[in-house]
Formats: sequence, structure tokens, C-alpha cells
Amino acid sequence: MTPPRTPDELQRFGYLGPRGTFTQMALDAWDGAQGREHLPYGSVDAALAALRAGAIDAAMVPIENSVEGGVSATLDSLATGDPLVVLGEVLVPITFVLCARPGVALEQVRSVGTHSHAWAQVRGWMGEHLPDAVYVPTLSTAASAAALGAPGDVMFDAGVCAPVAARNEGLDVLAEGIGDNASAVTRFVLVSRPGTLPEPTGADKTTVVLFQKDDHAGGLLELLEQFAVRGVNLTRLESRPTGEAMGSYCFSIDVEGHVLDARVGETLMGLRRVCAEVRFLGSYPRADKARPTVRPGTADADFDTARAWLEQLRA
Amino acid sequence: MTPPRTPDELQRFGYLGPRGTFTQMALDAWDGAQGREHLPYGSVDAALAALRAGAIDAAMVPIENSVEGGVSATLDSLATGDPLVVLGEVLVPITFVLCARPGVALEQVRSVGTHSHAWAQVRGWMGEHLPDAVYVPTLSTAASAAALGAPGDVMFDAGVCAPVAARNEGLDVLAEGIGDNASAVTRFVLVSRPGTLPEPTGADKTTVVLFQKDDHAGGLLELLEQFAVRGVNLTRLESRPTGEAMGSYCFSIDVEGHVLDARVGETLMGLRRVCAEVRFLGSYPRADKARPTVRPGTADADFDTARAWLEQLRA
Amino acid sequence: MTPPRTPDELQRFGYLGPRGTFTQMALDAWDGAQGREHLPYGSVDAALAALRAGAIDAAMVPIENSVEGGVSATLDSLATGDPLVVLGEVLVPITFVLCARPGVALEQVRSVGTHSHAWAQVRGWMGEHLPDAVYVPTLSTAASAAALGAPGDVMFDAGVCAPVAARNEGLDVLAEGIGDNASAVTRFVLVSRPGTLPEPTGADKTTVVLFQKDDHAGGLLELLEQFAVRGVNLTRLESRPTGEAMGSYCFSIDVEGHVLDARVGETLMGLRRVCAEVRFLGSYPRADKARPTVRPGTADADFDTARAWLEQLRA
Amino acid sequence: MTPPRTPDELQRFGYLGPRGTFTQMALDAWDGAQGREHLPYGSVDAALAALRAGAIDAAMVPIENSVEGGVSATLDSLATGDPLVVLGEVLVPITFVLCARPGVALEQVRSVGTHSHAWAQVRGWMGEHLPDAVYVPTLSTAASAAALGAPGDVMFDAGVCAPVAARNEGLDVLAEGIGDNASAVTRFVLVSRPGTLPEPTGADKTTVVLFQKDDHAGGLLELLEQFAVRGVNLTRLESRPTGEAMGSYCFSIDVEGHVLDARVGETLMGLRRVCAEVRFLGSYPRADKARPTVRPGTADADFDTARAWLEQLRA
Repeated sequence: MTPPRTPDELQRFGYLGPRGTFTQMALDAWDGAQGREHLPYGSVDAALAALRAGAIDAAMVPIENSVEGGVSATLDSLATGDPLVVLGEVLVPITFVLCARPGVALEQVRSVGTHSHAWAQVRGWMGEHLPDAVYVPTLSTAASAAALGAPGDVMFDAGVCAPVAARNEGLDVLAEGIGDNASAVTRFVLVSRPGTLPEPTGADKTTVVLFQKDDHAGGLLELLEQFAVRGVNLTRLESRPTGEAMGSYCFSIDVEGHVLDARVGETLMGLRRVCAEVRFLGSYPRADKARPTVRPGTADADFDTARAWLEQLRA
Repeated sequence: MTPPRTPDELQRFGYLGPRGTFTQMALDAWDGAQGREHLPYGSVDAALAALRAGAIDAAMVPIENSVEGGVSATLDSLATGDPLVVLGEVLVPITFVLCARPGVALEQVRSVGTHSHAWAQVRGWMGEHLPDAVYVPTLSTAASAAALGAPGDVMFDAGVCAPVAARNEGLDVLAEGIGDNASAVTRFVLVSRPGTLPEPTGADKTTVVLFQKDDHAGGLLELLEQFAVRGVNLTRLESRPTGEAMGSYCFSIDVEGHVLDARVGETLMGLRRVCAEVRFLGSYPRADKARPTVRPGTADADFDTARAWLEQLRA
Repeated sequence: MTPPRTPDELQRFGYLGPRGTFTQMALDAWDGAQGREHLPYGSVDAALAALRAGAIDAAMVPIENSVEGGVSATLDSLATGDPLVVLGEVLVPITFVLCARPGVALEQVRSVGTHSHAWAQVRGWMGEHLPDAVYVPTLSTAASAAALGAPGDVMFDAGVCAPVAARNEGLDVLAEGIGDNASAVTRFVLVSRPGTLPEPTGADKTTVVLFQKDDHAGGLLELLEQFAVRGVNLTRLESRPTGEAMGSYCFSIDVEGHVLDARVGETLMGLRRVCAEVRFLGSYPRADKARPTVRPGTADADFDTARAWLEQLRA
Repeated sequence: MTPPRTPDELQRFGYLGPRGTFTQMALDAWDGAQGREHLPYGSVDAALAALRAGAIDAAMVPIENSVEGGVSATLDSLATGDPLVVLGEVLVPITFVLCARPGVALEQVRSVGTHSHAWAQVRGWMGEHLPDAVYVPTLSTAASAAALGAPGDVMFDAGVCAPVAARNEGLDVLAEGIGDNASAVTRFVLVSRPGTLPEPTGADKTTVVLFQKDDHAGGLLELLEQFAVRGVNLTRLESRPTGEAMGSYCFSIDVEGHVLDARVGETLMGLRRVCAEVRFLGSYPRADKARPTVRPGTADADFDTARAWLEQLRA
């Protein structure tokens, strides 16, 4: 068996562009990406398609925002198509500024451009300071800054973006910290093709997508019992439509622990037996380095002892 | 106690506009809205704010798409702020057309405008037929048709919208049925202020939002057991961030049955006791009229018999 | 509704005789039995039959021994036939002596008479001190003393009984404290006809017998979930054959709390709905006065708040 | 590893004597005991002590009666002391006769001797036909017949025993089929020292005793979930006191399946991890040859597939 590729060997990193987005900040914060090639893509789909096609070695994409919730494009693209795995996660605090071309005052702003997720996070501030401003959707927060930074006509007077994007484009910052939730955080994941399994660190997460055999009542309860009985804690659960019919869902789940941990491994096997499909999306170090509470009887040593005992019974 | 207002008394209906959206189609399909006032709003938030302020009596908003999943703006706006309740639901099949100004041919289309959710549902068709088209986000699918229908410059060559929107604006239809999933359906809910409780029909749903007391491992499992032990089936479960911190979620849940059903009532009381908050979002007839499978021992008569027995024991 | 009879009004008390048994000690320890009529019966069945027939007002019978387990005759007689209820419980430490007619020395003992349950509890001592003694079963421990105390032939040289029985019969005590488990305790219950419900004291037990609708796998798990989801703790669970077929069981269960406690009441109603039969055997003060740990959300006030909230939703 | 001894190699068989008991009938029904040495013992304890000491190779003892329930002496002796394992089970229909010395008529019977368990099973008949008869306990049903068959004085006029015992002793049968439950069955187990594991037949049982780590509320529920989540069905569950304190129990459990079945093996390992002790009492063919219902996803092949998948993920 060949040893797994390590994250250090990755050379070309894609990300949800353009430059100046929070996703680029996440990629900049990833140690293994320093000094390597960074390629922006116009959408999560485009970045993951490039990854699947081999054009890049890894892609940084948003997966979850503490205010807006799961990023559907990422969740759905990971749940279907050729397999991909998560190598790690990055948490980026989300700080928005309102920016405009030099010389424009707050009082002059009649329309605001930004990505719809960002707009959702500044609704409170806007209602108070620019209640009459018209919203114009853009493809990303950075795209609103880029439009203002480029010469020529633009569809809006001001943009909402990361401080770095306003700086990049030479724009004036009319207001800082305009997000309604000062502690907003977005979680990004670095995704790659299977073949690379980060080593356990003792503070790991494992991500899976579960497809039920049938959509019977109580189905989710039975899946959760597979985790509970082996002492595996969930940190995220999201239902996503399978697209087949209204009411048909799969479940995107993060748990504490690594696939090499015995309790996680046995849980995955249990799910594999009762689910129509279990899609393994990787085990990787937690960004917050929080170690799990391992319930009595669920450490690797407990599994080893139990297995040795069983083998003796069976002999 | 005054009798509940009935849905028939509602006069002014808001909806997620503009005209020509699927939401308007949902409102048109609502019997009680025939011949009443219909007011478009620029966002779900705006419609629900108007409802809370008393400017309208009810609002039709999308809550879930069979392909794209839950509609965050609706879920989050219902989960917080002044209480609202759902009076009913409407299922609308989603059919997209590609439309352009008269005279424009498919081969000439270099850019396409539409709402981001619609764009996500036509990605496959676009990849095949217009792989190089640039995507331009608009506030709604109807807005893309409206921009093309209005005189003057427009940011894109073609739009993706409902057939009715293309017709309204006098546009040419370049392609029909371009959605990647032919059976895509969006579920809309008619929301009102509390005080109106639709009568049980035998084929009802109840919607709640659950906030846990603390985010302990196994918390969701315990909540689901409250349903299971009383024979109440879930038809939808979505986690949504509470916004307080990464990893802090509430759960938006639909179940079979009406709050006046004994098993649903006892379940809600059980949840109320163990949750930090249970937000009741209404009991209302199912659009598909599917009657629930009532497990043995969970019909109203079973609850009545059990209560009579208990009261005898206690006497 | 007539007020319940109180335990103070009971006049005639039966017990598992003869005099000198641990059961008599239990009855002597019952406050309400002081100065009333005490009638010994030859078997648990006989005592409970007399109670059902109205010949006595209450009967003290053993239900559980900390070493030997449940007392089948009591469990089965309570589980079937005309309903009876438990009014209270008494814990009696079990201390055995070896006794013989005056003049007989330990070395001379070749055979030992006692009740089979007592014999089981002194096996260790016998194996060490009288390894060759022949065991002769008697109807009760006191009966072995009585046989030795009466004139004439007897089938054994020594008896095993309570100290009081040896004293009553004027026998010599050859050895004291011969039980293998120094902390052995037997739990007795005072049983009466329905109509008397002891008031809640805050440290109560409730006893029920559950008959399943069918003997499906996982049936017991479902019953236990009825308790767990309402925060009701079990203190005893015993399966007993229903007699219908091998593998057909009912469950005799004690829980913390009183039938007038909301969480116990709702649990009983839940069981009543899913079981073929729930036999209520009473709520009564615990002998050890231990107060239950009431889980958050399961106190009476929590149930009241939840009900008021539900009624408001339904209004 | 030396191959396991097979049940065929057993030479000396003990049983709960004396001759003429139902236990002897069970041993006679055991194929592997034909033509081997059969040794009666005065008690279950004595038989199992002889087995542990190596004086015999196997012992036939009663473990459960469909009317009277579990046989405490057997359950407790298996649960503690040097390990023993069950090699197989035998079901014996229980038929009682009333017998007396030749010439004695039913009307003359004033006292009846038999084992207390047998007496419990003929109470109904006795109440109807000999309501005034005094009960005299004997060590076994056969002992009552033996006493009547021997010359000299006897403590009772008639005995209750198996038909064969009456025949052996040359007694008159005054009444046949006097058991209150015509379908009464006793289940016997053939016990041996560890080292012999019967091969899986596809219709097997596994017996274990579980000791909890602590006696917390909900403890049994957690143990049952270990079975349920792996699709292992229980056929018997009995709580037995550990003797340490009132309210401290272990659980004696039979399940469908063999320790070599993957789902049983994983369940045992799970129990081993969360229990203070799991005592394995053997896997053996069911007497009734009933094959278990194997739930989807819990067959050996499902476990194999899941393990292969996990190993691929981990590679």
C-alpha cells in the first residue's frame, strides 16, 4: 500500500474568487498554501469541477456561516459527483465595511451592491442607516468592490465587502463593522481528491453524508442512535434535499473524532450497513483544536480490550 | 375566549414579488386569496415585516425547494421576531424558460441573468448549451424578465424565469423546461399573525422551531425521542444557526398532525419542558392531503381512554 | 368523589406466618399496625386470598430480597387476580441464627431444617462449618424453630431462623450472624384493596406490572423509553412469565415518584396506550425516604407551564 | 490454537437429582448423553460445584419455567464463581401426577409432599380437589415419590411428581395432569467448563450476564440500545440482585444468534466496553430450531462489506 499523499505536496490551490473575498483570506490562513499557486474561480461549482478534473490539487470553499447557515452549493457539490475529501478547516471572522468611490458620502448612497449572503448579514445596519437604499445583488462581496474600483458606469453607489477588498480597490470606507452580528464567523474547508488522509491529532473532525434506505418515520432517530451508542458526538447536522422529491433528504454531518479512531470507525460501519449510501468526506484537524470528550468505554484502548476478549470467547 | 379568526377573513395578501414569480403563482393558487388585494414585496423580510406591522393580513413566502432546500430568509424570519403562524401550504412545480428580447437567438446569448437559486437549478442545462455564458445575479427570476422587458440597456442577454414572467414581458422563449430536475417543486407557506388556527382536516402538518437549553452532544436525539415515543412522524427537519456562535443551532421541524391532536399536543408539551424555547409556527392542512399513519395507541381515543384510567387511579 | 380511605383505618392485618418470621418483624415495624389484629397465614397466596375476600384489611408480604431476588409468589399473585395495591414498604435486615434444642452441640448437628430461601443465604457458612449436614426444607424459617420447640420427634437436629424465632421457642443459639451476606435485607410490602391512595411525601415509589401487546423484539426498549422521555427513574425491574408460553413475559417495575406526580401520571398514560395491560399496584412512601432526582423540565410546575402554553396555542 | 472440544467428547453427566425428576428427563433427551455416565446431585449448586471441580464433564440443570420463571439457584450459580458455559438447551413439558402408596384413596389424603415449585403449579387443582390438604416441602418432586416408595413412616400421604417417578417407586397414580397450566414447559441447559463452543447452526442462542458500571437511572435502557442498534433480539431478560445492596442488579439475558455471528460479536464488544463485567455463558443451538429474523444490514455479509469499505477509507 502506498503511503497517503500529505497535504504538504499540494501545489495548486483554487478558491471561490475573486481576490478580496473571505475565501481568499481563508486560503491565505492555510499554512500549506504559502508560496503555492492560488487560482480564483467564479463559483464553488467551478472550483470543485476544476479540482475533480485535476486542474488544481485542492480548493478552499465556504461550508457554513455562523449566521447564515450552511452553504448549499458546497454541501450539494460535495454530496454528489466524483468523491472529494476535506483536508482541513479554517474559521474566518466576518467583518463587513461599506465602501464607495472616493468622494462619495454616506448621505449620497442610494443603492448598495453585494452578495446576497452578505446583504442578509447587514440588514439591521442598513435598516437603521440607509433605510431607502436599493439592493443590487453581485456575484461576491469582492465583486461589488471590484465594480466600484473599475472605471466607468456601475449599478450601485456603494458596496459591502471585506476590508481587504475595499483596500485592494482603493475605495473609501464609509463605515466599518456593519455586520449585525459582531461574532459572525464563516467556516471554510480545504477540499481535495481522495487519497490524502490527514493524520489524527487528537482534535479531529469527520464529515459524512448519509442517504437513507427509505424515508420512513424515525429514520433520522435510528441514524443518530448509531452515533450515540458508540459515544460519537455530532457537531453539525444539516438536512439537504436529494432532489428526488419533496421530503426526500440526505444528512450532512460533522462528528468529533477521526476515521482512524475505533469509535468513529465502528460508527461508520454501522451507518454503512443501514444506509443506502454513506459518503465519507474526510477526517481532518479541527480549526479550534478542541479535544473531544471521550465517554468511558469508547477510547481506542477500550475497543482493543473488547476485541481481544471477544476473540478469546470465539477461540 | 373569542373564536379564532378564519382564513376567510383575510383581505390583504403580500407575497415575495415582483409579479411573475413562482411565489405569485402560489398565491394565485390559494383559494382564500381570490379577489382580494395582492401586494408584492422586494424580499421575504420585507413581506414579513409588513405582516408583523399590520400592513397586510397574510404573506405567501417560499419555505423549501425540493432541489435547493430550505429558504433561509423565511426560516430565519419565522424563527425570530414577533410570532407568526402558518395557515397553509402550496406546492408549485418549478418550470424554467430561457427568454430574451425578440430577435435574439440562442447563439447570441453571452450573459444570463436570474436569481441565484434558479441559476443553481439550471446549471446542467447551461453547461451543455451555453457553457461560456456569464452569470449575472438578479433579485428574482421575474426581475430578469422585467429588465429585459423594459426599454434601455440591460446587463445580460437572456433571463431564466417562469413561463408566465416571460409572457408578461412580451419576451421570446428560447428554450423551455431547462431545469435540471424535471420534478422540482417549491413549497410555499401562507403566513399570518397568531390568532387564526385552521381546523383539523385529518391530513395536517404542524411546524415548530426548537431551541435547545444547551448544545450538549445527543441533544437532538433526545428531542427526536419526544416525537417518537408519542408516535409523531417528522416530515422535515432543518438545523439553522442561532447566530450566537458557530455550532449553535435551532431546529425547524414539520410533523404530521395538528396541535389539536392529542399526540401532537403532548409532544409539544414535552418539548416545551426540555427546550429553552419552542416556537409554534402553526397547524394547517397538508397540500398533498396525505393522511398520517397513526400508530396503535396514539389516536385521540387512546389518549382519552388513558386519561380516564389515570384519573380513576388518582381518585 | 369520596375521599380515599387512609391507612390509619385498617384494622385486621394478615402476614406470611407463622409467628417469628421476618414478615412478622416487618409488620411489627409498621406504625399503623400497632395495637391492631395480626393474623398469620401459611402462604403469600393464602394471605392475599384472605385480603381479596375481605377477611383482612391488609397483608404484609415479602416482595424482594437483596440476595435472593424477587419473591415469585408475591409478584405473581399481585400481577393477576382481583386488583390489590401497595400502601407502603418496610426494609428488614436479615440475620440468621443456627438454633437447636437445649443441650445439642454444633458437632452433633447432622441435619438442618429451614426455608429454601434461607438455606440459599447460609450455604457458605454451612459449607465451612457443617459441610456434611443434610438439608431438610420447611415451610418457613420459623417453622423450623417451631418444630424444634415442640415436643416429640423432629426431622432435623438444628434450624436456621430469625433470632426472635429461636427465642420464642426457647432454643439454644449455636451460632449467630450465619448469613453469607451481612448486609442482606428483605423488602416487604403492605398490600390492601384498591381505594386507599397514600398521599405523596416527596419520596415515593410507584409499582406497576406491564403486559406487552405482543412479544416483539425491542418491546422492552420501547417501554423503557416511555419512562426515560419523561424523566422517570426505575428502581426495580423484573420479568415474570405470563404462563402462556415460554418466552412470554410481563414486567414488574418500581419507579421513583407518585401517581399524582405529573411525570409519573403521563408515563402511566403512555404505557397504558402501548401496552395490552398496565396493572397499577400503588404509590407509597419509600422506606428509605430517599428523594428522587427530578430532571430539569419534569417537575409538576414544568408540566403545568407546558399545559398552559399548549392551551393558549390551541385557543 | 487447539480445536475446541466437541460436546461429543463429554463422558460424565451430572444432573439435579434424584432419579425421576424432570431434570433427568431432560438429560435423557440429550443425544450426546446416551450411553454415558449419569450422576444425580442433591442441588444445582452441588452439580455445578462438581462440574467446576472436574468431577463431571457437564451438568443438566433447570434454568427457566414457563409458569414459575427463572430458577434462581441456576442463574446465580452461573453468574458468579468460576466460569461455566451452556452447550445446549432442552425443553421438557411439565406433567404432574398425584401419587400415593397402593391402597390409599384420594379421599384419604390429608397431606401432600412435593417441591415448592411444583406445589406452586398445582395450587389450583389442590384448591378444588384437596382444599384441606397440608403441604409438606420436599427437596424435589422425585424425593416425595421416593419417600413414599421407601418402607417406614412418611410425613405425607401423597406426592406430586413426574409420572416416571411414580412408576419408578411403584406408587398408585391418584390423578394425572394436575398442573394448573397444561402447556407448562421447563427449559434445561447443559452446562460445561469453557473450552467447548458449539458450532453455529443458524438457529442459535447466546446467553450473557451483564453487570453495570453503576446503577444509574436509564442504565438498562443504554444496555438494550447496544443490542437494538445492531439488530440483536432478546428472548429472555431477568434481573437478579448482585447481593451488594437492595436495588443493585445484574441482568441475565438470552439473545438470538451465535457469538460467531458478526452482529452478536459487535454487540458483546459494545457491552464489554460499557459494563463493569460481561459474563459470557455460551452460544448454542436453540431447542426449538427457530431461525432469527435478521434485520436488513445486520447479516455477516453486511458486516464484511462495511469493514472492507472502512479499511479502504482508512488506507
